[in-house]
Amino acid sequence: MVKYRIEHDSLGEVQVPVDAYYGVQTKRAMDNFHISGIQLSHYPRLINALAYVKLAASDANSSLGLLDEDKSRAISRACEELLSGKLHDQFVVDVMQGGAGTSTNMNANEVICNRALELMGYQKGEYDKLHPLNDVNMSQSTNDVYPSALKIALILEIRELMDAMRYLKKAFAAKGTEFADVIKMGRTQLQDAVPMTLGQEFSAWGVMIGEDVQRLDEAQSLVHEINMGATAIGTGLNAHPDYTRTVTEKLVESTTLQLVSSPDLVEATQDTGVYVQLSGVLKRVAVKLSKICNDLRLLSSGPRCGVNEINLPPMQPGSTIMPGKVNPVIPEVVNQVAFAVVGNDMTITMASEAGQLELNVMEPVIGYSLFQSMNMLRRACLTLADSCVSGITANRDRCREMVEHSIGLVTALNPFLGYEKSTEIAKEAMKTGGSVYAIVLEKGYLSQEELDDILRPENMIKPRYINRS
Amino acid sequence: MVKYRIEHDSLGEVQVPVDAYYGVQTKRAMDNFHISGIQLSHYPRLINALAYVKLAASDANSSLGLLDEDKSRAISRACEELLSGKLHDQFVVDVMQGGAGTSTNMNANEVICNRALELMGYQKGEYDKLHPLNDVNMSQSTNDVYPSALKIALILEIRELMDAMRYLKKAFAAKGTEFADVIKMGRTQLQDAVPMTLGQEFSAWGVMIGEDVQRLDEAQSLVHEINMGATAIGTGLNAHPDYTRTVTEKLVESTTLQLVSSPDLVEATQDTGVYVQLSGVLKRVAVKLSKICNDLRLLSSGPRCGVNEINLPPMQPGSTIMPGKVNPVIPEVVNQVAFAVVGNDMTITMASEAGQLELNVMEPVIGYSLFQSMNMLRRACLTLADSCVSGITANRDRCREMVEHSIGLVTALNPFLGYEKSTEIAKEAMKTGGSVYAIVLEKGYLSQEELDDILRPENMIKPRYINRS
Amino acid sequence: MVKYRIEHDSLGEVQVPVDAYYGVQTKRAMDNFHISGIQLSHYPRLINALAYVKLAASDANSSLGLLDEDKSRAISRACEELLSGKLHDQFVVDVMQGGAGTSTNMNANEVICNRALELMGYQKGEYDKLHPLNDVNMSQSTNDVYPSALKIALILEIRELMDAMRYLKKAFAAKGTEFADVIKMGRTQLQDAVPMTLGQEFSAWGVMIGEDVQRLDEAQSLVHEINMGATAIGTGLNAHPDYTRTVTEKLVESTTLQLVSSPDLVEATQDTGVYVQLSGVLKRVAVKLSKICNDLRLLSSGPRCGVNEINLPPMQPGSTIMPGKVNPVIPEVVNQVAFAVVGNDMTITMASEAGQLELNVMEPVIGYSLFQSMNMLRRACLTLADSCVSGITANRDRCREMVEHSIGLVTALNPFLGYEKSTEIAKEAMKTGGSVYAIVLEKGYLSQEELDDILRPENMIKPRYINRS
Amino acid sequence: MVKYRIEHDSLGEVQVPVDAYYGVQTKRAMDNFHISGIQLSHYPRLINALAYVKLAASDANSSLGLLDEDKSRAISRACEELLSGKLHDQFVVDVMQGGAGTSTNMNANEVICNRALELMGYQKGEYDKLHPLNDVNMSQSTNDVYPSALKIALILEIRELMDAMRYLKKAFAAKGTEFADVIKMGRTQLQDAVPMTLGQEFSAWGVMIGEDVQRLDEAQSLVHEINMGATAIGTGLNAHPDYTRTVTEKLVESTTLQLVSSPDLVEATQDTGVYVQLSGVLKRVAVKLSKICNDLRLLSSGPRCGVNEINLPPMQPGSTIMPGKVNPVIPEVVNQVAFAVVGNDMTITMASEAGQLELNVMEPVIGYSLFQSMNMLRRACLTLADSCVSGITANRDRCREMVEHSIGLVTALNPFLGYEKSTEIAKEAMKTGGSVYAIVLEKGYLSQEELDDILRPENMIKPRYINRS
Repeated sequence: MVKYRIEHDSLGEVQVPVDAYYGVQTKRAMDNFHISGIQLSHYPRLINALAYVKLAASDANSSLGLLDEDKSRAISRACEELLSGKLHDQFVVDVMQGGAGTSTNMNANEVICNRALELMGYQKGEYDKLHPLNDVNMSQSTNDVYPSALKIALILEIRELMDAMRYLKKAFAAKGTEFADVIKMGRTQLQDAVPMTLGQEFSAWGVMIGEDVQRLDEAQSLVHEINMGATAIGTGLNAHPDYTRTVTEKLVESTTLQLVSSPDLVEATQDTGVYVQLSGVLKRVAVKLSKICNDLRLLSSGPRCGVNEINLPPMQPGSTIMPGKVNPVIPEVVNQVAFAVVGNDMTITMASEAGQLELNVMEPVIGYSLFQSMNMLRRACLTLADSCVSGITANRDRCREMVEHSIGLVTALNPFLGYEKSTEIAKEAMKTGGSVYAIVLEKGYLSQEELDDILRPENMIKPRYINRS
Repeated sequence: MVKYRIEHDSLGEVQVPVDAYYGVQTKRAMDNFHISGIQLSHYPRLINALAYVKLAASDANSSLGLLDEDKSRAISRACEELLSGKLHDQFVVDVMQGGAGTSTNMNANEVICNRALELMGYQKGEYDKLHPLNDVNMSQSTNDVYPSALKIALILEIRELMDAMRYLKKAFAAKGTEFADVIKMGRTQLQDAVPMTLGQEFSAWGVMIGEDVQRLDEAQSLVHEINMGATAIGTGLNAHPDYTRTVTEKLVESTTLQLVSSPDLVEATQDTGVYVQLSGVLKRVAVKLSKICNDLRLLSSGPRCGVNEINLPPMQPGSTIMPGKVNPVIPEVVNQVAFAVVGNDMTITMASEAGQLELNVMEPVIGYSLFQSMNMLRRACLTLADSCVSGITANRDRCREMVEHSIGLVTALNPFLGYEKSTEIAKEAMKTGGSVYAIVLEKGYLSQEELDDILRPENMIKPRYINRS
Repeated sequence: MVKYRIEHDSLGEVQVPVDAYYGVQTKRAMDNFHISGIQLSHYPRLINALAYVKLAASDANSSLGLLDEDKSRAISRACEELLSGKLHDQFVVDVMQGGAGTSTNMNANEVICNRALELMGYQKGEYDKLHPLNDVNMSQSTNDVYPSALKIALILEIRELMDAMRYLKKAFAAKGTEFADVIKMGRTQLQDAVPMTLGQEFSAWGVMIGEDVQRLDEAQSLVHEINMGATAIGTGLNAHPDYTRTVTEKLVESTTLQLVSSPDLVEATQDTGVYVQLSGVLKRVAVKLSKICNDLRLLSSGPRCGVNEINLPPMQPGSTIMPGKVNPVIPEVVNQVAFAVVGNDMTITMASEAGQLELNVMEPVIGYSLFQSMNMLRRACLTLADSCVSGITANRDRCREMVEHSIGLVTALNPFLGYEKSTEIAKEAMKTGGSVYAIVLEKGYLSQEELDDILRPENMIKPRYINRS
Repeated sequence: MVKYRIEHDSLGEVQVPVDAYYGVQTKRAMDNFHISGIQLSHYPRLINALAYVKLAASDANSSLGLLDEDKSRAISRACEELLSGKLHDQFVVDVMQGGAGTSTNMNANEVICNRALELMGYQKGEYDKLHPLNDVNMSQSTNDVYPSALKIALILEIRELMDAMRYLKKAFAAKGTEFADVIKMGRTQLQDAVPMTLGQEFSAWGVMIGEDVQRLDEAQSLVHEINMGATAIGTGLNAHPDYTRTVTEKLVESTTLQLVSSPDLVEATQDTGVYVQLSGVLKRVAVKLSKICNDLRLLSSGPRCGVNEINLPPMQPGSTIMPGKVNPVIPEVVNQVAFAVVGNDMTITMASEAGQLELNVMEPVIGYSLFQSMNMLRRACLTLADSCVSGITANRDRCREMVEHSIGLVTALNPFLGYEKSTEIAKEAMKTGGSVYAIVLEKGYLSQEELDDILRPENMIKPRYINRS
């Protein structure tokens, strides 16, 4: 049988399980928010970030002479325990919550307070000895604690995503090198265009991912602006004049992140532009990944009735009815992740637009959506690299054969014969099923030697000097 | 040199071009809203709908003894002129406007008033003889006039769109019949699956469009609920107790639409759910069209390095550098229309969510987005039917050849050999490049006679009784 | 130490935990898809729906003489165990998966097969006795099983959501009755408009939710169309000619749902329009809920510096810095749910658009997003009803006082004094801070008796006959 | 009667109006694309950008010895005429077009060619003297011309938008200064929070807009990467090895923009990430503007039944039924622009995702949506600054009065009395309707002198040193 202790807040008394480190306000929030079924503890980085913030605030308050040293020491030790991974299971509030993150902040205040009480030799709940609000939350408001912690957690997530993207980029680049001599037809608008190498295609995808890493890095740098000391609405009410500077310095020190205090704390407390910016970049990453996966699925279509230029590594039997079928399951799941990220971006956009006056109360869904997008993108990148790209092989003969039979080769004749005569040749090839080479030769427009030079696929994959005379 | 007359409203005097049928409030709106550059006159159906509403209101007011007969007669004649297409150029306000449509309503009130004044033998602007608000707008508010007119206009637009979709559906169905005997490979996940006919594919697309016509028809029926008599907020303040019934009857008569009065006018005046519903269905139509166009582009990819099962009619030279290239330009533009419709749906969603208390002030952007989506979808359907689908031809030999060489045929062996032996055959075919037929024969799993029956593509395109014994 | 058994598929051998009911293909899918971290077992309705489908297929195959009776009986019993809630923990594949649901189907095939094997007295993995593909999946393909099961699960979810919405509707309607005599100012464009009752406002919200229940009911009816018997691409290859009819009948019987077989199975197998339609309606529900919650937050703003017409029940202390502050946390979380649902709709839209040729491979993310939206909406409706709406109280005096001091009362003078004289009065009231009543009286436009009648708020909340003479 | 000349292309002969500068391919595109009804000529910057590109290409070809000097000179002069605003009416193709911009490129090629022919003393259509493809389009493909021109046009549009945003920022900043001494209540979650100045609020909005200018500036810098010399797919086929460098230098010179050539032209030709990035930032701007406009409408709500802290300048009568009502029409239209921009972002996202292999054929709808978003945002910013923000006045007395009666003042007592005692005071004030000041005094918690100091609103709008002892 569960035993309870009684705690109270302004709304009255509440039973809290006697072993729980969380307290009355966390318990209320648990009762109020049965929405997503996902608890804060699913995002350990957010809990760590909260611990960093509470630790820094406690240190700052102590060094400004506002908080007794023994209280501060106990708070610090409790925060360090959180940072070492302990007590995360006490973060039990649903990630989807009203109140602008107050319940998250209170969950942290209460867990830290009760653990610190224990460390000080008291019982959980003896808030006259150490108080979750007066002491642990001193000089703070949810409105500066929550966004600051969220940003610290986001930076850590972004960095891990960037690592995964760099890993994927390398996988594409490696294939770019491996396939550098595989001549194939380029396609525009799904129609045969002109020759290129399969290596150029894979390299381009690597470059694409690489550019997105840069964009993400830029977005990340914007996330470093925090608003500790803003308190309720950015005016800094109840904060010591030196507090903002002190607490920010402490945070820089403990996190080793280049955090800075926002120059206008009123603006910073209500503004969620940075999340929209970050999500916009995540959407860009998603769009790119989806485009690349579409291409991989297209190029590996077949085996006999499709393009069939490349083979994706088989990961699982493809069909419960068609024996031997192997499907591009990895790119397919990456596509779906991309669609989810675009959806999350829309959620974040609406949540950001819904901010009113001095605060945006919709930050919890913003945070949740960002974490979800980044987690899924990271896993998608790693899976795509390891379970797909690295194992791709090329069907060299088929690639070359298609080039040699293609009508697109006629493009290279343009500078010699002009657009109209070239068009005429293309049309005849189309009609008769013949080859461009044979038709030009037959018509005597160019000598065989000239033709051999002009129509050699290897001569068509980069700019070269053409003597038109 | 433009001459002016002076008009005034509660904010003071304004110069109005002496020939203008619009008046002071329209002029202010012209000055206030330079946003999209698109005037109301671009949507003649909205102007007609406003004329229907004003006509019915005037008739109702007259028959309830609230409006002098000569005034009512003049208003009626002015409205009829609008319905015959006259004076539409006097609807000059930007479609993107604040004020919940007040400027649109006033543009109508003023044009009708001034034209009616002329018909009564007075000068434009002699509002003591006939007043745009007291008389033309009698018993009305923008908050019932604007949504009611918008809905009438939308119904007319939806019907025309449905006609265009039925036309497109027929084009697909006709090809379904034409291609009923073209055997080809079906594909799932872009991988070769099992045989089907090209006719089945085109018929399915026709069915798809047909289902969307039904969905649109259902959505259309919801648009018939109007809120005339609601006046400012749905309470009917300043409206005669019989007015709602009377004006609705008059509207049904003149428009021949089965309009009904909303059972809860307070709800009806603030609610924009019907637009969200309609836009959701338009998005569905867009998604289907886009999917089909993606398929058309895929099946016509090539001519030599792609799927090349069908040929789209060439509409224009495809490339400024690649002679002879012909691109699927019509499906491509339909895809883009689809993306624009999805974007408009998002705009409408946000605008609908932004409604506050007794009114949704964002209706102008909702109306504009809906008109734009429907116009573009209609033109896209007609263009797709006439400039693409109707001219599609099949590459019958290539279609059949791919079936005969495919490994997917192995699926039909499942009931006879089981999934595992069939898989083994598929794998051998894959490895050796051989045909399923030859391998089975070689292995002696089935007799040639049995094989001929089982693997005949025509036997694979519908369910049939299989004797497994 | 975990013990393993060895299973194999076309890609080779795999170790499966010896106690696991799932098999080789499920194991591969577990390894391939580490994406969302959410397993199929989180959606018990989907598992039940799969059990219904497998049960019906087994029955149909047996009654058509295709499957041995003892095999069929064992499959049936295994399915019934799933339906009673057993073995759900064996559904371990990530909901985000490539392969169009093949892994989900195989997870079901393998669990059912292994449990049936046990019931038949064999060991797990003895597939020569009963085969997950040849027997459990007989006459089926993922491409008919997965969407059919998804639809059955969706219907059940929709119904539960409709119940929650009806519950919320009643809560609003009850308050509509309770507040029927609370006179207050209506507002349009956030500006004071004309009087109404608070009851009218709450009733309107109830009506709004009620209409959405109807829309959802219509959408639900479309979900009843399934495609069992379509097999791989809708052509019914390998299915007995009577199978589609038989299996559909069995499903109707066991589920008691009015399921019907789609008239064009090729279309049905590739089309995802029904999900887009359903999601569009869910988005509509979300938009309405968000609008209503915005209004609740606005009307309860204050307590002293806002509108303060109503009080939401306090659910938790509002602030960690501002003592006594109570925030509208329940509406706030509902707003956030609404934004998430809109985001999911975008995900579903893109996933639907990405379907290619005979199949839409993106169905898993569609299903996941729909389940998530419906779950969260359901919980949001119940929470809003119980933890907010039911406890709302009205500040009657303040409501009435605002009406009496408002300038909007002047609207009722329109029919007597005309728009322009009324405007003049309004402007004077604005300028002097005086009341409309006093100004009219002072100017002698109307007698006190007339004024008392016209300006009585109770006379302004519905249409009434006005004697203008 | 219109007279025609006959032109032909690979599909046959076409009648072109004899006076038209455009030719056969433009005419075909006019016939093919009746979609949006908006012609290229609506975007003069795109036409100018095409002229810059064609001019630079012609110069480069000439300087590389590939194009005769007299031809090059005539092309240059024709381009300069376009740049001076001439012949823009000849750009008649619908902005919504298939073909990846080929019709736009051909419209430019043909107009420039025919005008150049005239300048050379020939007739329009004498393409044997100067050819739209062989000469005007020499060394080019739509696939490098179109995106390069689009980017140049976008840069010019972005800069103008940035100017408009800076102008709006200044308007907010000026009000920030003007209202620096207006004490008011800050609000979080629409509930009374703690005091601040109205100046802080307006300054914050100015800072917000200013930050978005910076984000836009960063996005703009990415748009400078062009792909001239890529030709069809980025391999540079048919381009001279020195051409890319030369043509880029010429473009930098003529446009004075810091354009650079993309390091990987294959990647650059297929990638549309830069548009997604730009659109993401435009969406951010839209979200901010919408949030600010929501706030302006909220703070000006009333006049007697709302917040009524500020007055927006009246721009037009607000209602056709409610005399004297003035509505916040300017913020309302800005909200709607914001929703349209978010919609366009979705369109751009889907269009970008739809790119396939070596090209994204959906660029026309991307370009159109970006131009539309930027145009509307620019006009919205200017309108908001001039017709709203600049004319805003403050209701100082009401602002101060609300602060003095507020319970939120209790927050300042926290450091002296602790959270729990402060809560008790707040609850009593709430219950009795009394003031915080009076209650504290009555209870004797603090001396009047202390209270006067602590509760002075001016002491609450920034951090200050608090002596707790």
